[in-house]
Amino acid sequence: MRMIVKKSKMTTGGPLIALIHDKDAKDLNLKSGDRVQITTKKDQIVCVIDVDKGNIIESGEILLFYETSRLVNDREVEISYYPKPKSIEYIKKKLKGVELEKEEIYEITKDIVQGNLTETELTYFVSANYIHEMSMNEVVATTNAMVETGERLIFNDNFVTADKHCIGGVAGNRTTPIVVPIVACAGVRMPKTSSRSITSPSGTADTMEVMCNVNIDIEKMKEIISKENGCLVWGGASQLAPADDKIIKIEHAMSLDPTGQLLASILAKKKSVSATHILIDIPWGKGAKIEEKAKALKLKKLFETLGRRLDMYIKVVLTSGVNPIGRGIGPALEAKDILYVLSNDSRAPKDLKEKSLEMAGEILEMAGKVGKGKGTQEARKILESGQAYNRFIHILRLQGLKNADPDKIAMAKYKEVILANKTGQVLSISNDLITKAARATGAPFDKAAGIFIHKQPNELVNQDEVIFSVYAESEDKLNVALEILKDKNLYKIK
Amino acid sequence: MRMIVKKSKMTTGGPLIALIHDKDAKDLNLKSGDRVQITTKKDQIVCVIDVDKGNIIESGEILLFYETSRLVNDREVEISYYPKPKSIEYIKKKLKGVELEKEEIYEITKDIVQGNLTETELTYFVSANYIHEMSMNEVVATTNAMVETGERLIFNDNFVTADKHCIGGVAGNRTTPIVVPIVACAGVRMPKTSSRSITSPSGTADTMEVMCNVNIDIEKMKEIISKENGCLVWGGASQLAPADDKIIKIEHAMSLDPTGQLLASILAKKKSVSATHILIDIPWGKGAKIEEKAKALKLKKLFETLGRRLDMYIKVVLTSGVNPIGRGIGPALEAKDILYVLSNDSRAPKDLKEKSLEMAGEILEMAGKVGKGKGTQEARKILESGQAYNRFIHILRLQGLKNADPDKIAMAKYKEVILANKTGQVLSISNDLITKAARATGAPFDKAAGIFIHKQPNELVNQDEVIFSVYAESEDKLNVALEILKDKNLYKIK
Repeated sequence: MRMIVKKSKMTTGGPLIALIHDKDAKDLNLKSGDRVQITTKKDQIVCVIDVDKGNIIESGEILLFYETSRLVNDREVEISYYPKPKSIEYIKKKLKGVELEKEEIYEITKDIVQGNLTETELTYFVSANYIHEMSMNEVVATTNAMVETGERLIFNDNFVTADKHCIGGVAGNRTTPIVVPIVACAGVRMPKTSSRSITSPSGTADTMEVMCNVNIDIEKMKEIISKENGCLVWGGASQLAPADDKIIKIEHAMSLDPTGQLLASILAKKKSVSATHILIDIPWGKGAKIEEKAKALKLKKLFETLGRRLDMYIKVVLTSGVNPIGRGIGPALEAKDILYVLSNDSRAPKDLKEKSLEMAGEILEMAGKVGKGKGTQEARKILESGQAYNRFIHILRLQGLKNADPDKIAMAKYKEVILANKTGQVLSISNDLITKAARATGAPFDKAAGIFIHKQPNELVNQDEVIFSVYAESEDKLNVALEILKDKNLYKIK
Repeated sequence: MRMIVKKSKMTTGGPLIALIHDKDAKDLNLKSGDRVQITTKKDQIVCVIDVDKGNIIESGEILLFYETSRLVNDREVEISYYPKPKSIEYIKKKLKGVELEKEEIYEITKDIVQGNLTETELTYFVSANYIHEMSMNEVVATTNAMVETGERLIFNDNFVTADKHCIGGVAGNRTTPIVVPIVACAGVRMPKTSSRSITSPSGTADTMEVMCNVNIDIEKMKEIISKENGCLVWGGASQLAPADDKIIKIEHAMSLDPTGQLLASILAKKKSVSATHILIDIPWGKGAKIEEKAKALKLKKLFETLGRRLDMYIKVVLTSGVNPIGRGIGPALEAKDILYVLSNDSRAPKDLKEKSLEMAGEILEMAGKVGKGKGTQEARKILESGQAYNRFIHILRLQGLKNADPDKIAMAKYKEVILANKTGQVLSISNDLITKAARATGAPFDKAAGIFIHKQPNELVNQDEVIFSVYAESEDKLNVALEILKDKNLYKIK
């Protein structure tokens, strides 16, 4: 059937969808959710149809939503029925609890990336993977499929390419921007892609964005890495393992975090930048994402097994996840902390510096740059000599420097302080509550909002001395955050 | 936040959804899939937001999709964050494999009906019910919840209200329009709601629509029933158990037919019209939906158990599902068959008449109108006396008569015949192939399209005598159907 093309700016969030009139749907024997092939002068595109019963378009017209409209330039197209993709059968198989073959997982992943599956079909897949937990074979196949269906960074030399990942849950724990320049100085390549925050007050990409541009495409990444041996960009700007974002979006609807998908997500991002040496940081302890050591060890084992299956050298370290790390929580405050550490400023939070050195040291040892047990020492030398700082500034410049002077990073308009309720030593600060409060200040969207910790765990404080400063861009946001910070479990002083 | 209302005619297919600008989403700390409360001068509405990154609207504006827009009359509204409904937690519980309480099922069902769940959230629920099969308690709770969240037909008298249901899969098997007037004449009330076809060449509602209007609301239904003791309407025109349609739509995406949901769907529709005596027809045999007798018996048992739990008198009959029933396949041809049977015309297909009498007889016995074993005989008396025909014509008139003369029901423009390939007795006709071919002719959308069976199973035929006539509104459709009918498994002659 010939149809006149109409275009909508409305996006579907991924799937290729077009609207056709009820009368035409009946003539073509089509119902909502069926596929059609759109034949243009140059191309053939398959998309899912939705049936217009509200007279948005006339019979004989086809309305293309944004994702589909940008693929079509013709004013008229030919429309014909197209069968469901094979992926649907494979998803159904997984729903029935049958393990999928790697070819089947590849087919589903490819269809996710190409927008060939509706949100409903994708949700069935995510549900099935949640209920019938993925086998190790499936996790391996999913990781590889996610890599193969995206862009890749490939290097034609023998340098070691390393990467790191922290499973999160610790406020302020922004070690990556310190680790990258240190190991880069020592000759270890680190093409770091990071995420933006979803539920925390800042992701590494949000923090880096205070200092430089992070929307860097793959060509520019290559250029920066060839010069500086490392970069610090937002993973979403390139098409590295793009299936991942679409799956995560569906998981968030139900706040699901299925382990198999999580492992595949993490390692696909690493594999797509050709990293072979991966350090995984699992913070654990009371108030952390993982509270029990046994669970942390189980996850460690899964990562290690998966590393062997994927031909990657994976080292997993268990670290303390009980307290926040660093003084700043929120993009601007975290950027300041990073710059203090890198420039060896006296205001550098000691815990952030030491954890970064430990991480960098592990990577140097893994890459064989120093002997066992010598990593942290070597990392410290590179940091304290100022080399790492210089490298970081070079990277910022290549990415489009915005601000590298911590004293010139402005804070939000409204500020309030919180005073210690007694004299003594700070025992602990709740990661959960400080995260919630910092999020309420407007971080990460309001870059200059957040919470500054004046007194970290182990430090001494006097009653009525300032323990936290809270920054927000509006009084409303400030008040919501302050309300959360009233919680008596926020900190403990002995 | 105050926002200016913009309205879209675009429908979401159920969920209440609004679009807000990226900047406002960040200010309100909202992401796609979060809820907001819209406060108008009169009302408060909760809907799900989608974030506009394509500049469809300006910051400060909110675009309401059709389902939400019809609830809002104000030009400006107040928008605030609204937490996720409790249903989300219950869906997550079911995803984890935990049996749901009846209050939890009620809450989910209510949210489905009110459009409070996104398609993704609803898909999670359907997946969970598919993988972790519903318990009998859950099926009972789901049936009751679907009834309670919809409109109901309630009668204030002591007449027996009966209903019937066939699980389908048999082409042409249109007994309902014959059964309803027969039992209505005998004093058994039958407020029949039927579905339109989804994958078959006709549903009872499609066939009835050839003869009268079937889009009848609940008030009009009551009026017709009070006069004639029965009606034959489309279930989708009223709000009887409305959750069902939304769940079925999601199941169709994956062609799922989970037993628990199927049972609840069927019985909720019956319960919502206050039917207490239900006849269930399970056709089984080679080529039917259910091929093995053991499976048919298992389903029978489930229906019977469920009947006891729901305080309904359910009788299940197992019938032959091997061959089509009646001569016509497609709305117009089936309407002709029905009128032939009711008017005692010599062209009446014997098998359709006998099966209808058997069904009607069962209902008369269940309702205590006749003694055991006397039902069919009584039904035959009512039919052959012409009473049932008169009753049927009265019902058609009250529903808006279109055509009750089988000779004036026109057939589609293009016709082709198929000749028998040898002389002998017709042994069988494939339900599956004749359904596929009849669907290809354009039925049920093209009412006058379909297939007429000149020689039914057991009838004698000569080589090159016409065995089927095929009707379609276009040559293209005719040819596609003929192609399917070339299959050598279409019929067997001995």
